[in-house]
Amino acid sequence: MRITLVNPNTSRAMTAKIAAVAREVAGPDVEIRAVCSNDGPAAVECHVDEAFAAVAVVDLIERDLRDGGSDAYVIACFGDPGLDAARELVGVPVIGIAEAAMHVAALSGRSFAVVTTLSRTLGRARDLLARYGMTQACVSLSGSGIGVLELEDTTSEVYETIARLCEVAVQQREADVIVLGCAGMADLCQTLSLRVGVPVVDGVAAAVGLATAMVRMGVGTSKRDEYAPASRRGMPPVAADDLVGSAYR
Amino acid sequence: MRITLVNPNTSRAMTAKIAAVAREVAGPDVEIRAVCSNDGPAAVECHVDEAFAAVAVVDLIERDLRDGGSDAYVIACFGDPGLDAARELVGVPVIGIAEAAMHVAALSGRSFAVVTTLSRTLGRARDLLARYGMTQACVSLSGSGIGVLELEDTTSEVYETIARLCEVAVQQREADVIVLGCAGMADLCQTLSLRVGVPVVDGVAAAVGLATAMVRMGVGTSKRDEYAPASRRGMPPVAADDLVGSAYR
Amino acid sequence: MRITLVNPNTSRAMTAKIAAVAREVAGPDVEIRAVCSNDGPAAVECHVDEAFAAVAVVDLIERDLRDGGSDAYVIACFGDPGLDAARELVGVPVIGIAEAAMHVAALSGRSFAVVTTLSRTLGRARDLLARYGMTQACVSLSGSGIGVLELEDTTSEVYETIARLCEVAVQQREADVIVLGCAGMADLCQTLSLRVGVPVVDGVAAAVGLATAMVRMGVGTSKRDEYAPASRRGMPPVAADDLVGSAYR
Amino acid sequence: MRITLVNPNTSRAMTAKIAAVAREVAGPDVEIRAVCSNDGPAAVECHVDEAFAAVAVVDLIERDLRDGGSDAYVIACFGDPGLDAARELVGVPVIGIAEAAMHVAALSGRSFAVVTTLSRTLGRARDLLARYGMTQACVSLSGSGIGVLELEDTTSEVYETIARLCEVAVQQREADVIVLGCAGMADLCQTLSLRVGVPVVDGVAAAVGLATAMVRMGVGTSKRDEYAPASRRGMPPVAADDLVGSAYR
Amino acid sequence: MRITLVNPNTSRAMTAKIAAVAREVAGPDVEIRAVCSNDGPAAVECHVDEAFAAVAVVDLIERDLRDGGSDAYVIACFGDPGLDAARELVGVPVIGIAEAAMHVAALSGRSFAVVTTLSRTLGRARDLLARYGMTQACVSLSGSGIGVLELEDTTSEVYETIARLCEVAVQQREADVIVLGCAGMADLCQTLSLRVGVPVVDGVAAAVGLATAMVRMGVGTSKRDEYAPASRRGMPPVAADDLVGSAYR
Amino acid sequence: MRITLVNPNTSRAMTAKIAAVAREVAGPDVEIRAVCSNDGPAAVECHVDEAFAAVAVVDLIERDLRDGGSDAYVIACFGDPGLDAARELVGVPVIGIAEAAMHVAALSGRSFAVVTTLSRTLGRARDLLARYGMTQACVSLSGSGIGVLELEDTTSEVYETIARLCEVAVQQREADVIVLGCAGMADLCQTLSLRVGVPVVDGVAAAVGLATAMVRMGVGTSKRDEYAPASRRGMPPVAADDLVGSAYR
Repeated sequence: MRITLVNPNTSRAMTAKIAAVAREVAGPDVEIRAVCSNDGPAAVECHVDEAFAAVAVVDLIERDLRDGGSDAYVIACFGDPGLDAARELVGVPVIGIAEAAMHVAALSGRSFAVVTTLSRTLGRARDLLARYGMTQACVSLSGSGIGVLELEDTTSEVYETIARLCEVAVQQREADVIVLGCAGMADLCQTLSLRVGVPVVDGVAAAVGLATAMVRMGVGTSKRDEYAPASRRGMPPVAADDLVGSAYR
Repeated sequence: MRITLVNPNTSRAMTAKIAAVAREVAGPDVEIRAVCSNDGPAAVECHVDEAFAAVAVVDLIERDLRDGGSDAYVIACFGDPGLDAARELVGVPVIGIAEAAMHVAALSGRSFAVVTTLSRTLGRARDLLARYGMTQACVSLSGSGIGVLELEDTTSEVYETIARLCEVAVQQREADVIVLGCAGMADLCQTLSLRVGVPVVDGVAAAVGLATAMVRMGVGTSKRDEYAPASRRGMPPVAADDLVGSAYR
Repeated sequence: MRITLVNPNTSRAMTAKIAAVAREVAGPDVEIRAVCSNDGPAAVECHVDEAFAAVAVVDLIERDLRDGGSDAYVIACFGDPGLDAARELVGVPVIGIAEAAMHVAALSGRSFAVVTTLSRTLGRARDLLARYGMTQACVSLSGSGIGVLELEDTTSEVYETIARLCEVAVQQREADVIVLGCAGMADLCQTLSLRVGVPVVDGVAAAVGLATAMVRMGVGTSKRDEYAPASRRGMPPVAADDLVGSAYR
Repeated sequence: MRITLVNPNTSRAMTAKIAAVAREVAGPDVEIRAVCSNDGPAAVECHVDEAFAAVAVVDLIERDLRDGGSDAYVIACFGDPGLDAARELVGVPVIGIAEAAMHVAALSGRSFAVVTTLSRTLGRARDLLARYGMTQACVSLSGSGIGVLELEDTTSEVYETIARLCEVAVQQREADVIVLGCAGMADLCQTLSLRVGVPVVDGVAAAVGLATAMVRMGVGTSKRDEYAPASRRGMPPVAADDLVGSAYR
Repeated sequence: MRITLVNPNTSRAMTAKIAAVAREVAGPDVEIRAVCSNDGPAAVECHVDEAFAAVAVVDLIERDLRDGGSDAYVIACFGDPGLDAARELVGVPVIGIAEAAMHVAALSGRSFAVVTTLSRTLGRARDLLARYGMTQACVSLSGSGIGVLELEDTTSEVYETIARLCEVAVQQREADVIVLGCAGMADLCQTLSLRVGVPVVDGVAAAVGLATAMVRMGVGTSKRDEYAPASRRGMPPVAADDLVGSAYR
Repeated sequence: MRITLVNPNTSRAMTAKIAAVAREVAGPDVEIRAVCSNDGPAAVECHVDEAFAAVAVVDLIERDLRDGGSDAYVIACFGDPGLDAARELVGVPVIGIAEAAMHVAALSGRSFAVVTTLSRTLGRARDLLARYGMTQACVSLSGSGIGVLELEDTTSEVYETIARLCEVAVQQREADVIVLGCAGMADLCQTLSLRVGVPVVDGVAAAVGLATAMVRMGVGTSKRDEYAPASRRGMPPVAADDLVGSAYR
């Protein structure tokens, strides 16, 4: 079985890190492939980034389909950008790392806390909690002020900041489980879990596990109505540069 | 005061219709400007369209900002694509037509029903209801099976289909108010309201009214944290064609 | 268009202040009229006051109807007393200032805080939040301990108390927007907004804006069932003094 | 112990019926007193009635206090008008018959249905369900179209209409319990229960039981903040006639 | 009328205390009987205890039925173990002390706080709040760290710990009412109420009151579907020792 | 890795069927073990059964622990009996098949329907939906009237009944996904999915997949507070026969 990790940002370092984490938890018969965008945002840290990331996800999945497709897709960005769009494109499972982490956290304890990058992304996280039915289970959301790209190569200072937020969540907010809110934190789980004494869930690993489970079960994306293939209207033959370029150049 | 209507699809006919409706309800001192995308989706009828529409909204607002900007923006597409992103870009009010219609409907009666185009868009509508706190107020959602572009020039058959859904919502689901779920239906309100006997709310008119109110009050978009201006990371200097083109060409 | 502001308390000073604020935000073609009760509570600061305020609202609207009626009514008391009753009486829009402020705040940011007069009124505010679907958007409710009539002529001490509560709401509770919970605070918005750095919404201005929008759209109060005109049973021809008098004399 | 039933409408026949029902379920050491309004609405069937009923409740309780007061009060009108106001006035328990019926129904089964008089009162019933945390437990609300005063002396036709609605609720909506939504239906419980095969709860009997329980436990109304005695501002010495008279004369 | 209190733990001291409290609040015509388990958990302080307590409740009620049955049952353990099972067994009312305390608290004020034994039981308490529709009314849950059996004979230190938690709940969390989360705290209500200045509700007394009310009204447990008598499949004739013994020996 | 399926009923035929289904979806390195109770209920079809099933789960897991324990446990009964208790006993993952099926269904579509055995079990299913945050995602619950043991060897009539309920759920209730509400239905997924055209999820397969994922990730059950090992009070040395025997012999 082949699972393709779709990283909508352009960081090759982060993509490599994500792939490594995924391979560590993947079963012996699971092939992990990781792709990233050439022209999406360098990091997804605001709503405008999120809009472009959704388009990048669509693009990356359509490329993969032209290459024969995969058995499942993981959207490796904590805002789950383009998740609904991706589910329209394919019949196999598509899992966002935020939803994956939240679902696994809900199986590990009664409550969880999200520790993430910039506090400005917490609004999006709240929308996802509501969408996934996880509002009641999430007892705390905290932004570390650490940018996504600082996580490419985590310094001890960055680690310390994140670890302290996890401790606060467990000790003061009574979180049973920690959810790490960025694909770039995927390598920190075990050390953090030892330190704070509760399970620490990374969405990339969680999504690979859930996707594997669904592929084995033969359960894909429901194609009833909302996610059925869409007959999209032809775009006018004008260059698309303008559309994307304005925001990022 | 100048309010700019941002239509993320490429239909010039629909853009003209929307502008006309907006001008009808605008106050004497309100200038209405309507723009549409050159290279976005021809109609927003699925989640992939929605992803591209969000990018089109960002693009259109950035263009307007380069032209001096406006006093408020209305996103003239019922899925409110790019709403959060647009709120990052400006300090003035930004109103989506779905949220506008829902808020006005909630002021007009205890309950409302949404009558829209394709049933596949109802999932998005449900997400918006939850986001805006309107889940309890909405007693019915129905798709007419009518495509967005069929509304450019409404036939009597199309009108009849919509009118019957409105009647069902009022008589069987006890809706106090009807919300029309597409900018292309903006011209049908009065006739429908006479027929079904309850207020029928079009989001374009509602959004113009709400935006006017906010401008007059001096209340714009809060720039605290989530919607503060974002320091977006530079994109690599590669052509963006690929990103958008794959889906629509 | 004529909008009548209905102030159910008997303070003429406050009524004048409210009218002035309303006129400042009203469009060029909007006439503002403000009326207050002769025999309602001097200030609405508890549930008993609220009960009498509701009756005062009914009375004031019925008087206005005998004088020819208005194009819309605003109930200028933050508990929105008599709102449902008023909607039975007329077919035009009726807007409470609490609902108006909450709806506009929800369009200005993701979250808001209510800063109001006495903490004993917060229970009513919570009921309104639930009724309007705003419970999730409201991150903080705080009572200042300042009585309604102290707001007739705001001292610097009163201002300072309110300003500090606003700062706490923004800095510690992460409110994107402040809602002022009393018609008597209507003149403080701009100064407070400059001080705390986020939009500050007054319900009187908000209600005038929303009512104007609805009148322009031709959307009034739905008269389906709940708000249809009621055939009220004749009261016995006994003097009504007893009924009201006991509580306030 | 003395429990006073406060009927805010003016029907002496209904007041007598309510008192009889209450006495049937009251314990051997419980004295039931029933009072009704002289100048309130003849029946509470719309929001304007509700507003006046709240004032009538305040008035009736204040009169009772001047006569020495009671050990508990029951507001014998299904909209629970004036409940919060009444709780401000006294330290003993105050129970509305809607809340009483809903709480008892929730102890009798997982779900209940409300069968009431005019469908226009269902909006108020929905507000009460939300306020009392009973929205999830209530699976059906239905109006019979029967006016309150038609219940003074129930005909077989009226009974049949109500019985059929109960059957529909049990058989089609899977209600475990029926809540009768009017004090005037208090005498129908046993016959209906035999017919539909599930418990049928009348709010008057329920409220007497709950009030008795609270008096025995020494648990009254919490006087913390919201329900603490209020120092109401003196009303101007003008006649109150105007206030009430306009609506009912 | 006879009400049987079912204490699923094996503490005879606590059973006697509960019976005494119940008799104090019971009406003159109510006979209180209290039974406890011979072989259930010594105290219910974790989920495994809870599982065995549910079985003990079933056992104790079946024994009582063989002895002629009672007019109502009270499950005298704050987790309401076996409540649904007990409702299957009988047609009379069955009331758990957690649900009883929560319902009475909701009639006494707008909000309440739960003060209980070990914090590890708060998860169960949260489940019950949700089940009974009381999540919004409960503003605070706190565990005292005091074990159930320490409450058999309350020391001044234990009392002080509980009293301080009640004070915190009232003063910092704005609870209108306190709910005591253990049958073993039943004798503390009055002293605590005097100290903290708000009503303090014990579930045993509350349940006796509610059960009495329902018996008088003739409202029992709905036997529609979920709680109808079940035709249980015969167990194989093997000794049951293993099943229960493993956990407690 | 070894996953132990805990079937709390006594049907060896069903246990064998469950094991077979689990092995089909398990990864190449996953060993499946299935155990059932000797003295629990023959089938779990009511709340009393559920109470005994919870105890049987505790017993079976304690036995497995004495045999060296497993890497994860699956509770193979749709009511998830004893789930919280089991989580106290071990540090590895414990997954109920109801929660597993609901979480996987939520990853496969926006909405799902539950099709189960007896309608009397739907109350429990509703409690689980609420506990897991799935109330909004579940659009329909239906009982087939088929007893658990009739599923040991599914007849074509039984299959037809279930298939028709699935069709109704998809076509009339707009369910994107079907959740089968009994371990005994585990072998029907593929045939049903082909027939109704949407994914059909069996909880046993889902739970095996989720447990595998968690074991690979190193995420077990959080042992913070609620699920920490409990120091259970010694039971008196009396025979336990009475406790369990009464209900099932």
